[in-house]
Amino acid sequence: MNNTVKFKADFPLLGKPMGNNPLVYLDNGATTQKPGEVIKAITEYYDSFNANPHRGAYELSIKATDIYENARIKTQQFINAKYSHEIIFTKNATESLNLVAYSYGLSHVGAGDEVLIAISEHHSNLVPWQYVCQMKGATLKYIYLEEDHNLSQRDIEEKITEKTKVVAVAQVSNVLGLINPVKEIVERAHKAGAVVVVDGSQSVPHMAVDVQDMDADFFVFSGHKMLSPMGIGVLYGKEALLNDMPPFLMGGDMIDYVEEQHTDYAPLPAKFEAGTQNVGGAAGLSAAIDYLNRVGFEYIEKQEKELTKYAISRMKEMDYIELYGCDSSRDNKTGIVTFNVKDVHPHDVSTIMDAHGVAIRAGHHCAQPLMIYLKQNATCRASFYFYNSKEDVDKFIEALSKVRGVLGLGA
Amino acid sequence: MNNTVKFKADFPLLGKPMGNNPLVYLDNGATTQKPGEVIKAITEYYDSFNANPHRGAYELSIKATDIYENARIKTQQFINAKYSHEIIFTKNATESLNLVAYSYGLSHVGAGDEVLIAISEHHSNLVPWQYVCQMKGATLKYIYLEEDHNLSQRDIEEKITEKTKVVAVAQVSNVLGLINPVKEIVERAHKAGAVVVVDGSQSVPHMAVDVQDMDADFFVFSGHKMLSPMGIGVLYGKEALLNDMPPFLMGGDMIDYVEEQHTDYAPLPAKFEAGTQNVGGAAGLSAAIDYLNRVGFEYIEKQEKELTKYAISRMKEMDYIELYGCDSSRDNKTGIVTFNVKDVHPHDVSTIMDAHGVAIRAGHHCAQPLMIYLKQNATCRASFYFYNSKEDVDKFIEALSKVRGVLGLGA
Repeated sequence: MNNTVKFKADFPLLGKPMGNNPLVYLDNGATTQKPGEVIKAITEYYDSFNANPHRGAYELSIKATDIYENARIKTQQFINAKYSHEIIFTKNATESLNLVAYSYGLSHVGAGDEVLIAISEHHSNLVPWQYVCQMKGATLKYIYLEEDHNLSQRDIEEKITEKTKVVAVAQVSNVLGLINPVKEIVERAHKAGAVVVVDGSQSVPHMAVDVQDMDADFFVFSGHKMLSPMGIGVLYGKEALLNDMPPFLMGGDMIDYVEEQHTDYAPLPAKFEAGTQNVGGAAGLSAAIDYLNRVGFEYIEKQEKELTKYAISRMKEMDYIELYGCDSSRDNKTGIVTFNVKDVHPHDVSTIMDAHGVAIRAGHHCAQPLMIYLKQNATCRASFYFYNSKEDVDKFIEALSKVRGVLGLGA
Repeated sequence: MNNTVKFKADFPLLGKPMGNNPLVYLDNGATTQKPGEVIKAITEYYDSFNANPHRGAYELSIKATDIYENARIKTQQFINAKYSHEIIFTKNATESLNLVAYSYGLSHVGAGDEVLIAISEHHSNLVPWQYVCQMKGATLKYIYLEEDHNLSQRDIEEKITEKTKVVAVAQVSNVLGLINPVKEIVERAHKAGAVVVVDGSQSVPHMAVDVQDMDADFFVFSGHKMLSPMGIGVLYGKEALLNDMPPFLMGGDMIDYVEEQHTDYAPLPAKFEAGTQNVGGAAGLSAAIDYLNRVGFEYIEKQEKELTKYAISRMKEMDYIELYGCDSSRDNKTGIVTFNVKDVHPHDVSTIMDAHGVAIRAGHHCAQPLMIYLKQNATCRASFYFYNSKEDVDKFIEALSKVRGVLGLGA
């Protein structure tokens, strides 16, 4: 049994048919499927350990607290944060980014300041910064792209200035699948006195991440894009920054002492975790990290690179396919292939491929400023994960080759 | 088989022992246990239907969207909202209340205005209003209590004035277990031109709720306190108010069109649901509503009232027990019994009872201003649900009767 067959067997949904075809799931950039042991971790939590954590002096609540706090430690180790209290659990990467924008952004960005983001950012790392700039009279600036779709080196060099208070950038673009030079950006930003917010949603599931080595000030990701259940996300922040920030969501568990007219807030990480947290989600995240550690990022990166190279080479043989971000001059391509089929709307491409059991994404991928920059209304996106096989790519190519024919266009 | 035996059999955790004793779970005000069919709904979602909703043109994503949107319609019907787009999914009631405070509060409360809340509010419906008042130079006022711990009728009559912009009140206090006269408060507030934010966290799981009859402007609750998984909460808001409010969390799915310097927001409900939503959680919430509808609130209310009356009558026989909120002059008591044992710290009470398998809560219950008002640092709280039995109360009383003896105090 080869590796992908072995891995696929761990995922209940990957063995299910879609209509009359076996499912070929290539929308991993949107959300990944979950292995049985992650689903089991959720079930076991509710079957045997469910209670409100932190608040109870009884065994069950203490056990729920342990599960929740162990997930925090596992997450800390997973991205090599210095302290576990630098890990804040949220509901998804979007909440994490909003937390940084509301709490750090509104209190540290002022009139005349600048926030710098990449034109390829997902809306979740873009719209909150529009809001901060509008609220504070600051200017939102953009790092545009080179011809090969990598971030403009000149913009990185010239647009980080002493006016820049925040640089917000994805480690990997969710449309182009290119790894951005975040370490270099962090170094330049720190020299200019700016903090860097890194969106790791498309990197953490696919490569080993070390937030201390990267020296990111804030780093966010979502569990559901890395085998975990929905409803659990992560914000990493440097201790000193998080300590210095006002709370965001307010309520139970994030307080130290509340009087009628005044509240003292709890220390980290509770300060940023108001209300009953998603312990079942944390149990699932914990199991997902165990699974990923067992597969190993060496294998994951290798498999995804191979699939991507193979898919791109096959697609380049089809002269009616336009590819985006697939000709990087650097070896920084992850498992995301974004493309259009000449004269066919991406939604039609996706619908026709769905009839063959192949699930890909079509649309603006929550990155409309990038679409406008690329002069496209929408694109198709196939995104691979380690459990995809060369056969999946073959089926994808086969379905893709039928799209224009179905619509009565020439091949 | 009597009803509670039948119901308990539906909950995997309620059949499990705690140490050497069968579990007597009486912390339902913090979170409830989950029936097997709710757990199964989560499992089935991840086993068979998991995809990112709204964003995909393929079968699996369409199915995930259906599950998510059907949960919204079921929730709408459950609390009798007029439109399904008045139901916003959040991660918990705390997020829902913060959404209202940030989005409605900051844009509608100004200098010199007043926000009126009950002294018995949970921190989640209190600390956000402190924040709004501090940010806007408004005054936070309190409805205090009568001698029988009900909300002061005089405060309700006198403190809602034309200065009042927001009244925030729980339908049921999480400490006192008393049903507040929200319908009367809403009527008075509307006459004064104020909106009313009702925290239904402790009411929705225990009684039939009709938001249109109540005429609440905003109404919030958490799934996990009503048999659902953690990580899913609800905000109901009147369409006209929600339409008029700025978004709160910003990112994917809540936009209509994004340009570099400007964003048009999506219509309701998407406008308030940024990022990938917790579809697994929504599937669980849906199954929980089905379960509750089948049990029926007539039965739920009756069973909880009987257990509470029985527990209070037994506790009143113990002269070293001090009860809070258990002598209401009205028939408005739910299944929450809050008390202290003379000369024993509540945490010790809880720990000693835990040794007998009885799980109760001890602490300030995220309601410190109420604790200060009651001149208590902390209390114990037993909170019943429909699956609790008279035998559970007997075991609770038996364990409670041993507390002082264990500590060498007289009975």
